[in-house]
Amino acid sequence: MRGEVNRRAVLVRRPVGRVDETSIQLDEVPIPALEPGQALVKVRYLSIDATIRLWMSDEPGYVPPIRLGSVVRGLGLGEVVESTTDEYPVGCLVSGMTGWQEYCVADTGRRRMAIINGDTRPTQALNVLGFNGLAAYFGLRDVGHLSAGDLVVVSGAAGATGSIVGQLARIWGAGRVVGIAGTDEKCGWLTEELGFDDAINYRKDDINDALASKCSDGIDLYWDNVGGEILDACLRHLALKGRIVLCGTVSSYNDESDPRGLRNYSTLLMRRGRMEGFIVADFEPRYDEARGELEEWLRGGLINTKEFIVKGLENAPTALNLLFDGENIGKTLVELNDV
Amino acid sequence: MRGEVNRRAVLVRRPVGRVDETSIQLDEVPIPALEPGQALVKVRYLSIDATIRLWMSDEPGYVPPIRLGSVVRGLGLGEVVESTTDEYPVGCLVSGMTGWQEYCVADTGRRRMAIINGDTRPTQALNVLGFNGLAAYFGLRDVGHLSAGDLVVVSGAAGATGSIVGQLARIWGAGRVVGIAGTDEKCGWLTEELGFDDAINYRKDDINDALASKCSDGIDLYWDNVGGEILDACLRHLALKGRIVLCGTVSSYNDESDPRGLRNYSTLLMRRGRMEGFIVADFEPRYDEARGELEEWLRGGLINTKEFIVKGLENAPTALNLLFDGENIGKTLVELNDV
Repeated sequence: MRGEVNRRAVLVRRPVGRVDETSIQLDEVPIPALEPGQALVKVRYLSIDATIRLWMSDEPGYVPPIRLGSVVRGLGLGEVVESTTDEYPVGCLVSGMTGWQEYCVADTGRRRMAIINGDTRPTQALNVLGFNGLAAYFGLRDVGHLSAGDLVVVSGAAGATGSIVGQLARIWGAGRVVGIAGTDEKCGWLTEELGFDDAINYRKDDINDALASKCSDGIDLYWDNVGGEILDACLRHLALKGRIVLCGTVSSYNDESDPRGLRNYSTLLMRRGRMEGFIVADFEPRYDEARGELEEWLRGGLINTKEFIVKGLENAPTALNLLFDGENIGKTLVELNDV
Repeated sequence: MRGEVNRRAVLVRRPVGRVDETSIQLDEVPIPALEPGQALVKVRYLSIDATIRLWMSDEPGYVPPIRLGSVVRGLGLGEVVESTTDEYPVGCLVSGMTGWQEYCVADTGRRRMAIINGDTRPTQALNVLGFNGLAAYFGLRDVGHLSAGDLVVVSGAAGATGSIVGQLARIWGAGRVVGIAGTDEKCGWLTEELGFDDAINYRKDDINDALASKCSDGIDLYWDNVGGEILDACLRHLALKGRIVLCGTVSSYNDESDPRGLRNYSTLLMRRGRMEGFIVADFEPRYDEARGELEEWLRGGLINTKEFIVKGLENAPTALNLLFDGENIGKTLVELNDV
């Protein structure tokens, strides 16, 4: 069932700090008419990822900034409600760059979307089978060179990517997996349900003391989702030949320079460590290989997930802010109202 | 000709900041008597390296700190003046861990030294054929993955290691080599005699502006000898997939924490960069391979060097301080008085 208009969340001004109605506004435009070879997708879920905040700034990033006046860029999934191509039959579910809007157009070119099939929950296309799972997969293996027996520390561990990183590290034989998160509830989820060996609540515990006692032999692989002081503390506790995988610097996305800076970087020299950033798109040719394995582990119950669902397109900016406040647990999604 | 006593420079207190007579004192002890299988070496030259300052602190480093009350650890070269083994004939020149003293003992075990032969200047054993050349060789190739066409930036470029790094980058086909040094004289040496394409005097030029204009396509490989603000500026100008080789953090050796910190580390994420520390000893099994090539390039005039010689064991602490003041050019050596 299609509505009359397409409601969209548009970037009207580059945010300073948190996003709000001065930076993102809703508008309504006509639902696009289809050309041959296209499909109209009614969006059901938006994937809320920290990187979206980064795309809103005009600092040089790994992709061009979102243009002012355009729909906020983002992943989502939806259902094909009209189609002029056999590629996307009406009724099928698809995932891809829907943007923050109620309707989008899929085609077989630049706006290609992936058809969701298989027997896992469809929203896994935005989570374990989406960029979160793929980042964990390639980041641990190809960037972090995870070895059996490694002591692995993950920050942002109760977030979508972090929670998968810890579980994949387990699957691949890490010696010990320690998660860093910001509430006792999150820490409990990590150790009781996800198989992490230990967890640190960085808001309660002194991070340096906690790392010294829980990782006394040093950190072999640190997965960084946050940057800032936690990254600096993990640098200090790095083991000989330790690797740091930079997947996000959430602590600075709302505040582009880190005025404190990393002070312990000379540990990289003393312990012959490595710190490396990556983006998952670099591994695109191997997505299918990874998805095959991830789907099997999901089905086998080796990877558990939690969804944190915020309802309504109008609440997408709030959902994004929650990531930086640490209020979310697991994968944050916006579920669009049935219009 | 042997003297009557062995004069030594002993670490009596861990220095705070620069070294002086409160941290290093000269003493005199009897010249050691030889056991079978040993040689007495009269030290001629000491290699003055920034890392020695690091060994004097009790911060965790890559080797244990120098013990209080012991001779300052360091590389040197000397002549065998007495011997109880055919391994070290009287009159031959050897290099190794002599320490800061006039006499040392070589054996075939823990105190093994290398016999200097070949037709290059003997002090090259402490320079191009020593740790400076070996660090440049393995650091550029095995850590920095230098590729033909790379834009290479080197800090501390007029120092012993930096000056070899730039010349090896040229030999291996770098697209452009830019050196960072602290005086116009040094910059002139780099571009006029060593084949660097360009040089930045960081004391005169704004380092960010200079990098923006001289490396506008971004830095593919940055060789860091200094840490601190220069490292931070180079991070900011890193090219996509750029590599940073950490070989020293001279700016913080006298001042163990860097209170300013690195602020631009998120560039590693945005540009998928890598920052990695190493020490040359990790490559020991391949020293001979590297020395063979380095010696050939030295003989062929492809590598030029300069020696900065300070006379007298009593001036070794001053010579070490000069490295941090940036007063030296090329390889800093202490020549011992003929006792």
